[in-house]
Amino acid sequence: MMTVAQRLEALRATFAAAGIDGFLVPRSDEHLGEYVPAAAERLAWLTGFTGSAGLAIALADRAAIFIDGRYTLQVRHETDPALWEPLHITDEPPAEWLVKVTPTGTRIGYDPLLISEDAVERMARGAANVTFVPLETNLIDSIWTDRPAEPLGRVTIYPERFAGRSAGDKRADIATALREAKEDAAVLTDPASIDWLLNIRGADVPFAPLALGFLIIHADASADLFMAPEKIDDTVRTYLGNAVTIAPRRALGTALDDLKGKRVRVDSAGSPAWFAQRLRRAGAEVISGADPVALPKASKNEVEQAGIRAAHQRDAIALCRFLHWLFLRGPTGEETEISAAEALVSFRAELPEFLEESFPAISGAGEHGAIMHYRVTPESNRKIGADEVYLIDSGAQYLDGTTDVTRTIWTGPGVAPASLRDRATRVMQGHIAIAALRFPEGVAGSHLDALARQALWSVGLDYDHGTGHGVGAYLSVHEGPVSLSRAARPIPLKPGMILSDEPGYYLPGAYGIRLENLLLVHKAPEAVEGVKPFLCFETLSLAPFDRALLEPDLMTVAERNWLDAYHARVLAEVGPHLAADARTWLTAACAPL
Amino acid sequence: MMTVAQRLEALRATFAAAGIDGFLVPRSDEHLGEYVPAAAERLAWLTGFTGSAGLAIALADRAAIFIDGRYTLQVRHETDPALWEPLHITDEPPAEWLVKVTPTGTRIGYDPLLISEDAVERMARGAANVTFVPLETNLIDSIWTDRPAEPLGRVTIYPERFAGRSAGDKRADIATALREAKEDAAVLTDPASIDWLLNIRGADVPFAPLALGFLIIHADASADLFMAPEKIDDTVRTYLGNAVTIAPRRALGTALDDLKGKRVRVDSAGSPAWFAQRLRRAGAEVISGADPVALPKASKNEVEQAGIRAAHQRDAIALCRFLHWLFLRGPTGEETEISAAEALVSFRAELPEFLEESFPAISGAGEHGAIMHYRVTPESNRKIGADEVYLIDSGAQYLDGTTDVTRTIWTGPGVAPASLRDRATRVMQGHIAIAALRFPEGVAGSHLDALARQALWSVGLDYDHGTGHGVGAYLSVHEGPVSLSRAARPIPLKPGMILSDEPGYYLPGAYGIRLENLLLVHKAPEAVEGVKPFLCFETLSLAPFDRALLEPDLMTVAERNWLDAYHARVLAEVGPHLAADARTWLTAACAPL
Repeated sequence: MMTVAQRLEALRATFAAAGIDGFLVPRSDEHLGEYVPAAAERLAWLTGFTGSAGLAIALADRAAIFIDGRYTLQVRHETDPALWEPLHITDEPPAEWLVKVTPTGTRIGYDPLLISEDAVERMARGAANVTFVPLETNLIDSIWTDRPAEPLGRVTIYPERFAGRSAGDKRADIATALREAKEDAAVLTDPASIDWLLNIRGADVPFAPLALGFLIIHADASADLFMAPEKIDDTVRTYLGNAVTIAPRRALGTALDDLKGKRVRVDSAGSPAWFAQRLRRAGAEVISGADPVALPKASKNEVEQAGIRAAHQRDAIALCRFLHWLFLRGPTGEETEISAAEALVSFRAELPEFLEESFPAISGAGEHGAIMHYRVTPESNRKIGADEVYLIDSGAQYLDGTTDVTRTIWTGPGVAPASLRDRATRVMQGHIAIAALRFPEGVAGSHLDALARQALWSVGLDYDHGTGHGVGAYLSVHEGPVSLSRAARPIPLKPGMILSDEPGYYLPGAYGIRLENLLLVHKAPEAVEGVKPFLCFETLSLAPFDRALLEPDLMTVAERNWLDAYHARVLAEVGPHLAADARTWLTAACAPL
Repeated sequence: MMTVAQRLEALRATFAAAGIDGFLVPRSDEHLGEYVPAAAERLAWLTGFTGSAGLAIALADRAAIFIDGRYTLQVRHETDPALWEPLHITDEPPAEWLVKVTPTGTRIGYDPLLISEDAVERMARGAANVTFVPLETNLIDSIWTDRPAEPLGRVTIYPERFAGRSAGDKRADIATALREAKEDAAVLTDPASIDWLLNIRGADVPFAPLALGFLIIHADASADLFMAPEKIDDTVRTYLGNAVTIAPRRALGTALDDLKGKRVRVDSAGSPAWFAQRLRRAGAEVISGADPVALPKASKNEVEQAGIRAAHQRDAIALCRFLHWLFLRGPTGEETEISAAEALVSFRAELPEFLEESFPAISGAGEHGAIMHYRVTPESNRKIGADEVYLIDSGAQYLDGTTDVTRTIWTGPGVAPASLRDRATRVMQGHIAIAALRFPEGVAGSHLDALARQALWSVGLDYDHGTGHGVGAYLSVHEGPVSLSRAARPIPLKPGMILSDEPGYYLPGAYGIRLENLLLVHKAPEAVEGVKPFLCFETLSLAPFDRALLEPDLMTVAERNWLDAYHARVLAEVGPHLAADARTWLTAACAPL
């Protein structure tokens, strides 16, 4: 097996033949998704870095890897700084770095299937001295001799008793939207959009039931699906019907060429640059517009909402059983980050419709909790000790819904230090500021993010991640287009959308705190003099927040009332499903502050 | 004199010769500014509407005027709905209206000097059935026979003891920025940018000391000023020096043509479309980028800050004298909206360096307070009665700084109703949420706007305007590029920027509440564990908030502490400058809650 140094050397050896001075290696696959099949883990293969987002740039004599705040610690663990200079992507953006370290006329190659047109253009604007050159083949693939095969997970029908609407009705809606926009077709490259639209699911990547593929949907509601035919059996073919043709991935290029002369919508931010480039070459008119499925998919219908609520109620039983187990086992010093995470999975696996985790659980004791996206390994695994902070961020895929929840625990038996309780209470206040919020229609997640930070900001503290992300309906746990983040595009929140609410606080080398529930957007009840429609949130996740970390005197009456009411609801909804000893524990954990 | 109906008829009669089916009439002048000379009041001349923002579209058989939430009531007072259909610009955007009411192939003419390229493109994207046609001459000017002459206000030097830096140093900085961006020149069309850059002021428009003109600044720091030469005397010419050429407005076109082959920055959002169109025709490479002066101008230097602080301290004396006068006169029923506004101007005029109001004061009693941008006229003028709400939003231009402040008063002698106190207290809480905020660098005004609304949102209420705007240094009271508004571009706040903090609440037909101070952005003192630099606000405006409208029990301890500390500061800084009776009143008005 090649060493990481040999891999970088081998990559550099391809530059001359390709006519380039450097090469971009993003973490994404050709769907620009977060969970990618093993065959697309090029960044990890090349650099060793296994985080969920990152970009490497290899030049002939130096190389850098750009990561965000979640991964500043992890990148140092996983990569060799002598080979890969680790840089924070907002402190030193790739374009600025290129301007600094490369001469005028530098040619940087990229695989246009792995990066969006917007991202390439942004980089090109920032680095005026560099020409970015789309390559026909990925240089990594030419040197990665034992690259895994493409996944061939079986495609299944997602029944309408969970999806709520037929695939035909969904296609008809999208076709109407295309005709209203005077467009002939749209290219979908996000498997979550395609799978939602066709009411199918797959098994191509870990943690999300995605069937990877591409789709062209036409203004007459017919569609062409590009997906390995061996993944699709006759039942699924029959369900998809005659209006959906099925062809292998390799037929995609000529299908795009056939759109010559048509007005075709491509998402310039969310789709690989290759699509617009190929369409323009074929003589199609490329209309840069949002994935037409993104918003309909984000606003869950009543049936999806009911399924998601049911999945969360089951998930809450597993979570409360786990927290009780942790209450008993935590102070013993006999459990580890791995054993705890495994215990949680086993509690979940006891419940109906459980399929897998919705992402690798972040199970971090003490100083590991400060690593925002810590992923425990046998090497890093550490005991959970007495009197320390333990953070567990986890979720599950149930057939009727996707969950994601974080609790932070003081293992005891001693009292948590006052400064820790102060920080945790401020995080709790941030969580409540969002969960209890009412806000008018038209407001976007980017406008609300600050509300979750106010209590921390007031004492000069903050956290280096967004406050929340969208969540799919038995799809990816991270779903666009809305999020609770200052960086989010200002897309108004709508009823039926699901967002995580997960402020945190991290003291490197000491502990991490994160408190997360999923929230569902609703129309708010009528207000007094208000004329505008208001929205509010329903909390989906049900589990107590550890009172050992809270300082009630810091909280307002309204905040304490919110938490007491939430805990009362947890006890009422989850208590009846627990054994007597766990129920006794939950009763105490949910008592009014 | 032509009637409004005759004006619309006359405009329509020009369509055939111009080869168009309709014509756009925005409120702006060729600087896209808010305060426009009488010669540019085309929208008011055509429709009767005198608000500070609006857009009319005249078609052959129908016509509409688009206004924002501030002007929904005013437009009904001032325009004839049989001629001009009044529409809310966000509920029914002009492009959507055009799609609805015009057939494919419709040609809409516009004057490219009165609208930005971004705005034209946005409209063109929204109304695919319409072709927008730039016209060489403005059709209004051809029928407005008694159109006033262009203003010729005398230009004066703005002394460096107020400006803080020499014009040469400022030009050198901008030239450096152009060279770093590899640009040969930038076109400035905002008079505030030009006047700030050259350390000059003028007298061309009411309410802001602007000298109207255009400027081309080159990467070698030389500049070409296009401004009526009769406005500029020898002293100013000498001050500007040889590096600044002066030519009349009519020389601008050929000067742009001379930039053939150069890379020229034009602000596609802030400059009229005409500039980029002319430059492209001449063969220049137009780089769409922000006005390079906007950010340096927005971050006031130490000398500007000191002047602004001094101006606010004087303004506070006038304001407190006025509020004392109002305390005595308000309940008598003998004062009116006009007499009160005049009293405030006369208190201001007693103080050094006062020049004029910085905008037409909004002096609204009772139901008039609910009209967000109410401008009292002899016809609308109404007595200020006992036991009602009176709102006064006003500001001044002092040679050392620009002020803008709003107070809302309960005239008494009775007790304000509980629901009114509830609303006013929530507005006060919103004001404090911003004024007392600490926030990390990188945060923009669009991220903070929601903090000012939280207390209102929680009971289903809101206000239909932004929370605050930038303010110039003896320049326009409304200054870009930052603001506290969800619609603001996410430009991070920086030390030295000045923003208004003015949440409100309006109950149509009953009353309006708005509580406004100006805030200056500072670096915050070091925090406990914080590593990131934090920012905070210094409050510049000094005058008591009327305690008769506040309900202390609704406020948190922190909010009450903030208000008590602010009032103590008002008393300490303003009290010594008041006569004994006013000082006695101020002492009571500033007592702890």
